[in-house]
Amino acid sequence: MEHSYDPWFETSVDLLSDPQNQRVWSIIISLFGDMAQQPNDQISGSALTRIITPMGIKPEAIRVALHRLRKDGWIESARSGRASIHYLTQYGRDQCSAVTPRIYAREPAAPQGWHVLIATDTCGQSALDQALMLPGYIAVNRTTALGCGPRPGNTDDLLALDATNFSLPSWFKAQLFPTEISKSCAALLNVLNRIPPPGPELNSAQIASLRTLIVHRWRRVVLRHPDLPASFYPAAWPGDACRHKVFSLLDHLPRPNLAELGETVEA
Amino acid sequence: MEHSYDPWFETSVDLLSDPQNQRVWSIIISLFGDMAQQPNDQISGSALTRIITPMGIKPEAIRVALHRLRKDGWIESARSGRASIHYLTQYGRDQCSAVTPRIYAREPAAPQGWHVLIATDTCGQSALDQALMLPGYIAVNRTTALGCGPRPGNTDDLLALDATNFSLPSWFKAQLFPTEISKSCAALLNVLNRIPPPGPELNSAQIASLRTLIVHRWRRVVLRHPDLPASFYPAAWPGDACRHKVFSLLDHLPRPNLAELGETVEA
Repeated sequence: MEHSYDPWFETSVDLLSDPQNQRVWSIIISLFGDMAQQPNDQISGSALTRIITPMGIKPEAIRVALHRLRKDGWIESARSGRASIHYLTQYGRDQCSAVTPRIYAREPAAPQGWHVLIATDTCGQSALDQALMLPGYIAVNRTTALGCGPRPGNTDDLLALDATNFSLPSWFKAQLFPTEISKSCAALLNVLNRIPPPGPELNSAQIASLRTLIVHRWRRVVLRHPDLPASFYPAAWPGDACRHKVFSLLDHLPRPNLAELGETVEA
Repeated sequence: MEHSYDPWFETSVDLLSDPQNQRVWSIIISLFGDMAQQPNDQISGSALTRIITPMGIKPEAIRVALHRLRKDGWIESARSGRASIHYLTQYGRDQCSAVTPRIYAREPAAPQGWHVLIATDTCGQSALDQALMLPGYIAVNRTTALGCGPRPGNTDDLLALDATNFSLPSWFKAQLFPTEISKSCAALLNVLNRIPPPGPELNSAQIASLRTLIVHRWRRVVLRHPDLPASFYPAAWPGDACRHKVFSLLDHLPRPNLAELGETVEA
């Protein structure tokens, strides 16, 4: 299949590329997380090049990023004749699978119940800090954490209680959904709205490029705010509209077959 | 009736008098609060003298205290021939009636439900400070208040929530029931345990002296910690035992008839 110039594809890639957040190693993780997260999945060096270079990233930058990812234990590489293949390490798969449910959730999680942990300036601070390192905890202020589900039993040094019937002040909503993330999200939504539904003429590498860019941009929005019910949103939070648009586009860009992608020879 | 020397009475008064907390104006308030809190109640100067001087307080100190209480708007005095009479002002009655339910509660109040108000260092602090001035609110730390009952509707600037299923750390219990108050309470309990049940030989003024001292000592314990269910007590909190003993003694010292007390002429 020839990699022909496709103005629609070029335009979409240009819109989705975010020059300020174009960290190549991070884009490669988005790609592996989206398409090669299972233990036996692998992506050939040539496929990687065909997926990533259309984003305006040079092959040399891909090599540097792969080197860093190998050094940090995310990725391993192997040679098969003249071809190279790359795959996630167990560590890399664990990192990806820890966030995959949140990135790909079509409905934001609605936690069943909440609890609150309270310390003082002098008591319980280390217990609170430990709790805040766990998933499902949100810092309210220096001495208070909001946690998903009923309170755990092992909170000896903290005032712990189950919480219901919230009244949420605007400062807390703004703290959960900072203006900066709201702007990133609105910018992504704006970009996504300008991309018409993809047609059938896209090849596998092009689909992979677009999926990678969409997931990459969305990942950087969705993982930077906690999963909370709509009652926690500040006014005009664009997250739900953005999420809807992300999955509407991804549904039109079904994951390409990796084997097919690896075998396709560049013209 | 002659004011005879009664070793049992003298011993009880000595035990109950607390030289460190013997503020005369405060003892007078305890007396009025216990025996003359209704609009038409009054206590004659001579009755006041006969009730208070056995505590080792000089008539001159009583005059000084009454002067201060008049100046502060708690008490008014009038003359009737050579006799003086004293009574609480409306302000004084309001101050007394605000705390009477807590002082005379035979069972500590068990609030039905709780809510929590949370500020940050920069937001909601003035709303929190206002809440903490209301009855039924307890400070947890600089940014958190625990309130009785369900959360109010007007908490715009605070994170507010209904709270159940508490786990209470020892620092919070110690904060609610400080060691100093625990010691005062244990000391009072110790004193009360050393007083045998009063006999029928006490005259009205003696009963009034003992009631005043018991109520005064108890008031200074019970009003210095919040009314909370037993689950909030620190280990070995002597409050319930002390409360039980206070009311057991007061039941043996029924309130004297004020008219009778006023007419009794000192020998």
